[in-house]
Amino acid sequence: MNANATAPDRDGTAGTANPQVRICEVGPRDGLQNLAALVPTARKIDLIRRLADAGLKHIQIGAFVSPQAIPQFADIEAVAGGVRDLEDVTLSALVPNVRGARRAVACGIGTLVFFFSVSRAHNLANVRQTPEESLAALAAICAEVLPDSGAALRVDLATAFGCPFEGRIAAETVLAYVRRLAEAGVGEITLCDTIGVGTPRQTEALARACREAFPEVAFGMHFHDTRGLALANTLKAWEAGIRAFDGALGGLGGCPFAPGAPGNVATEDLVSLFSDRGVETGVSLGALLAAGAFLRETLAYAGGHPPECA
Amino acid sequence: MNANATAPDRDGTAGTANPQVRICEVGPRDGLQNLAALVPTARKIDLIRRLADAGLKHIQIGAFVSPQAIPQFADIEAVAGGVRDLEDVTLSALVPNVRGARRAVACGIGTLVFFFSVSRAHNLANVRQTPEESLAALAAICAEVLPDSGAALRVDLATAFGCPFEGRIAAETVLAYVRRLAEAGVGEITLCDTIGVGTPRQTEALARACREAFPEVAFGMHFHDTRGLALANTLKAWEAGIRAFDGALGGLGGCPFAPGAPGNVATEDLVSLFSDRGVETGVSLGALLAAGAFLRETLAYAGGHPPECA
Repeated sequence: MNANATAPDRDGTAGTANPQVRICEVGPRDGLQNLAALVPTARKIDLIRRLADAGLKHIQIGAFVSPQAIPQFADIEAVAGGVRDLEDVTLSALVPNVRGARRAVACGIGTLVFFFSVSRAHNLANVRQTPEESLAALAAICAEVLPDSGAALRVDLATAFGCPFEGRIAAETVLAYVRRLAEAGVGEITLCDTIGVGTPRQTEALARACREAFPEVAFGMHFHDTRGLALANTLKAWEAGIRAFDGALGGLGGCPFAPGAPGNVATEDLVSLFSDRGVETGVSLGALLAAGAFLRETLAYAGGHPPECA
Repeated sequence: MNANATAPDRDGTAGTANPQVRICEVGPRDGLQNLAALVPTARKIDLIRRLADAGLKHIQIGAFVSPQAIPQFADIEAVAGGVRDLEDVTLSALVPNVRGARRAVACGIGTLVFFFSVSRAHNLANVRQTPEESLAALAAICAEVLPDSGAALRVDLATAFGCPFEGRIAAETVLAYVRRLAEAGVGEITLCDTIGVGTPRQTEALARACREAFPEVAFGMHFHDTRGLALANTLKAWEAGIRAFDGALGGLGGCPFAPGAPGNVATEDLVSLFSDRGVETGVSLGALLAAGAFLRETLAYAGGHPPECA
């Protein structure tokens, strides 16, 4: 366990490389969920295995949602079953409610990721709930599913930097939700720049405010590269003490309504940035680039959009 | 004149907004030069005028090279003539030799931009000269054209971070060329990450080394966003005291051999980054975005690739 790491590796997945930063690969979830074309189950399993082989110890494999909501994840149980034997890797998945959480636990998912938008308008549009209703759903998961499940919990605060409906989100709004989560005992919270409008100054201020007010919480950040700022934001977040970051292989994950628009920050670019800072990620860039080539081939096969050139 | 500005605005173009950083728009040159389709002269003139209207005080309008080498600039004299009346704007252009420099001066170009690669292999491939031969060409320009021309000189060191043939370029190599230029009296030098492989650590170290060794030189930086690091590098360069940056509207300027690959850092993103840092650029982001829409329309008209979504 590295003393510099503020995000405790509580799932016991510390790799041999003793990483100083936790990179969570969200490509199989955030990258694929907006694709119109369905990626075959076997390809998803192969992709996740290649990501694990590259040294990624935290992989978000999909979402336990209704197949009507996101057809891409209709095969999530089969995907989970196909990668369940991966050793030293924490598999996580989105769960929107008790039902999804129960399904995830039954599949042996290590970390349940609950999410809601701090923007009321976005949460209503996205999950047809107010943030209060989402917090009630989270409380139900904590009461009914988590105990004795063996699973950890991570909560993602979507639109924590800005919202397509409400514009810039004030740090106070985010901090108010973080306080309620922290008081409820949530130990891992990811601040998500869902639409990629956060800036370095905003990132630094938000990171410092969160860490000072809630030192007991392990904070992560999730950036999209809409304005080319994802790595600059990552740099400032790291300097402010954040030690967990999401990335998606190949920068996949653009908005389906903005073809060609940048998606998630590319995991390759995150690894490259941290390598430049002398920060150990435990990830092999070469293996990651090879996995990226496999992803491109897969998307061509599935008829989806190719990821950006990394 | 702002006391924080280390890049003296010696062309007397300080705008009313008292900018603290000099942003040089290179889209009409670096953005267009790789387009297979020729952009009509009137469109180029219109584009440059819109860029000036947005508040950009330094605009690189093209290159005085042979039309056989770059057909896109066969109309450079006409373009220069069409924007010569712009007030408070320094127009610059690439000049590879005495002949080009004479043509530029005859057009009233305010800053001649001479360029060569610090990588021998790249310079041979690009201009069919060794760096020594390029330095001789520069000496000829300084002796035969610059005196009494009224023009200023800027020298661009290409492949200052890395080269497609020689790999990573050592800071010592760059510093050796900077020394020769400084000793020759060159007061403005731009370090160019021609292929976009520079990293934040490399940028910071190079910027500090250059500024410490040559405090009399105004250094600028020119980034491409190949690995998503352009703005992170800009941030570190700014923190190391660099006060001049090139950008291209819409992030235009990708390598013609890598379709879809990111090009120059987008001027919009530079302006947005500095705005976030509280650094005055003197540029209107709204007017810049409108100019970007005009550029996209122009490229569609010319049959070229659209720029990235900014």
